[in-house]
Amino acid sequence: MRLTREQVERFERDGYLFFPSLFSTAEMQVLSDQVPRLFAQHRPENVREKDREAVRTNFAAHLYSRPFARLARHPRMVEPAMQLLDEAVYMHQFKINGKMAFDGDVWQWHQDFGTWKNDDDMPEPRAMNVAIFLDEVNEFNGPLMFIPGSHKLGVIDAAHDTSTTSYPLWTISHDTIARLVDRGGIVAPKGPAGSMILFHSCLVHASTSNLSPWNRVSVYLSLCAVSNHIRRFKRPEYIAHRDFNPIECLPDDCLLKEYEVALPWKNGSPQDAGDTSLAA
Amino acid sequence: MRLTREQVERFERDGYLFFPSLFSTAEMQVLSDQVPRLFAQHRPENVREKDREAVRTNFAAHLYSRPFARLARHPRMVEPAMQLLDEAVYMHQFKINGKMAFDGDVWQWHQDFGTWKNDDDMPEPRAMNVAIFLDEVNEFNGPLMFIPGSHKLGVIDAAHDTSTTSYPLWTISHDTIARLVDRGGIVAPKGPAGSMILFHSCLVHASTSNLSPWNRVSVYLSLCAVSNHIRRFKRPEYIAHRDFNPIECLPDDCLLKEYEVALPWKNGSPQDAGDTSLAA
Repeated sequence: MRLTREQVERFERDGYLFFPSLFSTAEMQVLSDQVPRLFAQHRPENVREKDREAVRTNFAAHLYSRPFARLARHPRMVEPAMQLLDEAVYMHQFKINGKMAFDGDVWQWHQDFGTWKNDDDMPEPRAMNVAIFLDEVNEFNGPLMFIPGSHKLGVIDAAHDTSTTSYPLWTISHDTIARLVDRGGIVAPKGPAGSMILFHSCLVHASTSNLSPWNRVSVYLSLCAVSNHIRRFKRPEYIAHRDFNPIECLPDDCLLKEYEVALPWKNGSPQDAGDTSLAA
Repeated sequence: MRLTREQVERFERDGYLFFPSLFSTAEMQVLSDQVPRLFAQHRPENVREKDREAVRTNFAAHLYSRPFARLARHPRMVEPAMQLLDEAVYMHQFKINGKMAFDGDVWQWHQDFGTWKNDDDMPEPRAMNVAIFLDEVNEFNGPLMFIPGSHKLGVIDAAHDTSTTSYPLWTISHDTIARLVDRGGIVAPKGPAGSMILFHSCLVHASTSNLSPWNRVSVYLSLCAVSNHIRRFKRPEYIAHRDFNPIECLPDDCLLKEYEVALPWKNGSPQDAGDTSLAA
């Protein structure tokens, strides 16, 4: 999958690209079928919503679930990131965000690179998010909101919010958000299951709570240029990966056909995956 | 202001009517100008968001603010309710909902009549909400969400939720909401400041949090048929009024011209407005 010159220019201007229905319903079903089983597991990779049972985020399923391991090597997700970064990429983070019906909580305004820099010591914003919708995203189930063009400001000052939700996040001040929105507005791409969003690691985004009866499960691949790998292992390995080997893509039909993939954590994550060390 | 036969039929079918830009910008400005002053007051009528300074709801401003006292007698708001109820109406509740930029919290799925019946012993759902937008309402600042047709089920079982937000509410179970939405879907009327919504007291509604930099201040008149007045004074008088006299409308230009109105609480609410009594 090659982005056109027009798409590349749009990405540079807005900080994101939206591809409605890029994957088929059959391809998404292969993934959706695994989600209840993954979310039901009691393992550290499942972060639950504050005061609730609902899973907010499942981490690193590509290391213990076959369909997600294949997704992590999908050319439609990985190749555009390689093209934009002009380099091989490794998997910095792999997550399934639940944003479950009735229970899905907010994500405050933030840049992903803010966290990756502050917590993981990633040198440059040479990393990319690629998200796909396992469910339809509509105006009622808490769509991602972007401030177009906000990626151009580089790293914006942020404060570590450890109390609003169950997941600590480096969040941006209200004054700054108001200023950015004044200039760029807000957009919220919506579309059927199988739609994909590619967005810059400095693009400011948020999402509101999901009061609707519709789940809004999405998968995020955070792909980092290999030369730009993180320098600090402050967070558990299942949140910020330490395997900097370049991803080798599978063929385009890899969700519908069986291809051999390694599942190193299929019997649980290794003892040291939860270890953290500022000295590492 | 008379509703057409078509509007009356639509109201009976859907449970609400939406009137975009029914009031002018100049009319709304007269009200908006008063809001910061009202919200800044430290009086029991201002209920603040959980753990925040932002005002969630200001009650009973029509008893101590001249422009809101005139709004409470506005024919464009009061006459449609009289027409639909085919009777004179009194003011059961008058509130300004803040849903302030960044801080506005959710309102869980509920019917207003559930609270009016359970707390105030209002005999029948012969009451109506009429809301106007003081700010533009868009997809990002937490618009009201309705389940069309849900008013036809009468009073739905509800549980008293005293913990989710700063304001106790009789809320409806997730299973019931999912069933209702399956049948009726969800709508969220959006439009410029000055738009008005009229909705049935049994219409199930909710609104999500406001993460945007745009306030979403709205005024709600809850108008009850005079013969259907509440029987129990369990809640403070500034939340559930005890003056059952019929509202006498002012002329249509009453927001832009000065008309004499009584302001009985202009020096603070009376000592006994906070009193409650199950025996009353």
